[in-house]
Amino acid sequence: MPDAANRGDPFKDLLAMRYGEEPVGDGPSNEAILGLLAHRSVRAFSPQALAPGTLETLVASAQSAPTSSNLQTWSVVAVEDQARKQRLARLAGTPRAVEGCPLLLVFLADLSRLERLGVAKDAPMEGLRHLELFMVALIDAALAAQNAAVAAEALGLGTVYIGGMRNRPLEVAAELGLPPNCMAAFGLCVGHPDPAVPTEVKPRLPRSLVLHREGYGTAAEAETIARYDETLAAFSRRQGMAETQWTPRVLARAGTAAALHGRDRMREVLQAMGFGLR
Amino acid sequence: MPDAANRGDPFKDLLAMRYGEEPVGDGPSNEAILGLLAHRSVRAFSPQALAPGTLETLVASAQSAPTSSNLQTWSVVAVEDQARKQRLARLAGTPRAVEGCPLLLVFLADLSRLERLGVAKDAPMEGLRHLELFMVALIDAALAAQNAAVAAEALGLGTVYIGGMRNRPLEVAAELGLPPNCMAAFGLCVGHPDPAVPTEVKPRLPRSLVLHREGYGTAAEAETIARYDETLAAFSRRQGMAETQWTPRVLARAGTAAALHGRDRMREVLQAMGFGLR
Repeated sequence: MPDAANRGDPFKDLLAMRYGEEPVGDGPSNEAILGLLAHRSVRAFSPQALAPGTLETLVASAQSAPTSSNLQTWSVVAVEDQARKQRLARLAGTPRAVEGCPLLLVFLADLSRLERLGVAKDAPMEGLRHLELFMVALIDAALAAQNAAVAAEALGLGTVYIGGMRNRPLEVAAELGLPPNCMAAFGLCVGHPDPAVPTEVKPRLPRSLVLHREGYGTAAEAETIARYDETLAAFSRRQGMAETQWTPRVLARAGTAAALHGRDRMREVLQAMGFGLR
Repeated sequence: MPDAANRGDPFKDLLAMRYGEEPVGDGPSNEAILGLLAHRSVRAFSPQALAPGTLETLVASAQSAPTSSNLQTWSVVAVEDQARKQRLARLAGTPRAVEGCPLLLVFLADLSRLERLGVAKDAPMEGLRHLELFMVALIDAALAAQNAAVAAEALGLGTVYIGGMRNRPLEVAAELGLPPNCMAAFGLCVGHPDPAVPTEVKPRLPRSLVLHREGYGTAAEAETIARYDETLAAFSRRQGMAETQWTPRVLARAGTAAALHGRDRMREVLQAMGFGLR
């Protein structure tokens, strides 16, 4: 893989990097798809400001994403104030990216707009009390955010999602003045990548584990994960990081409630924020 | 807006169509961003088959999306079998798109892979019992799916999300052989758009309602929604549909539990499927 970039076919090269193994099959491609395949998270940003209008372009891209029944149950708070970014970085536990990026987009699962509309029209809005609508809001926010991320990368910018924005949802809500029925689903840092910090395409699970045909299957799963463990270990070696396989990382992250960094109380916290979750 | 396409600046034209009003501000743009802005849902497909390798390109694009802590808590079932599509269409209540598309991608919020890994390694996997991990799985699935949708549109294909795949989650799980801790989050129909059925960019809420600076605000919300109601009514008139504003649609969709088409029992159903949701 280290020489993947020299093979000359960018589509096959990117597939080889993405899967950390020989290219898997041929398919149609073009510049936009190469852009998607080339994604890597960027956590170190240069101080260079964004071009004027960048935020508006990103938001228009986000609003162009599909949304369930056109309900548009998401919003975004753009944070550029350095002191606020620092406070949010502390809450999320991710100082480098959040403090260092010129633009932090906090995507909100936002049922509050519909709630206010119901109050204004004296309508019951029973649906908002249900887990389903919270799921809709999370999905809406994610679809919108990914469009913004794709747009940012298409402009040569770097991005990283900040799931740590869910570590302390009540404090984040207070910092951003969020109304009830509205939560920060995640952050998205946007900026010019620091050219001194190279990044590499991270290998994902072999396609056979993720793509199922007609029905779900688990054939050869254990062996395939063992192969991926080696792929990720090789990736971390190349990155000069401690050699890390996937399996131990997963067991550490999902093994205990404590590893959720406070998110093990998500249900109570969301209810305290007004979500029904029935 | 009807003459928007004749103005000559595709970026401004698309913004005008997206917001259903005069272009709002300038910003950087390029072909990839124009592609995002030009999104419209396609529900009528031509019988034309997809180019070989299309599925693999879409899945590689999906796997290139960010995923929380690299946990990759999603999977996808590709359905091409016509009888299975018909059964799923019936369950989702969306016959036209699901039966008519050559490829139905059912995106799964999938904690089962981590569950099996925990069993294999005799690890507790307490995290999987919590609502937070279910949220991670939904977000992972949505980020991946949106990359697949963007890739499909970049190849000239049409797509539409099928939230109705959540109407009867247990039956959908049985149809696809899903293991416990794994649910169909939504479907994505993919195919060549039927050229006989034109589609138009759908206007979204004015940007000022969705984009907040530094903190959440609701200034002028009621007036802005009233303006959007008129924008959507004009859109539906142009589409030859009954004139429909946003507000009554929202009140109908979120107003009652019955309007959730069975999804008002989502919590119990998910727990029956093995999700902890603590």
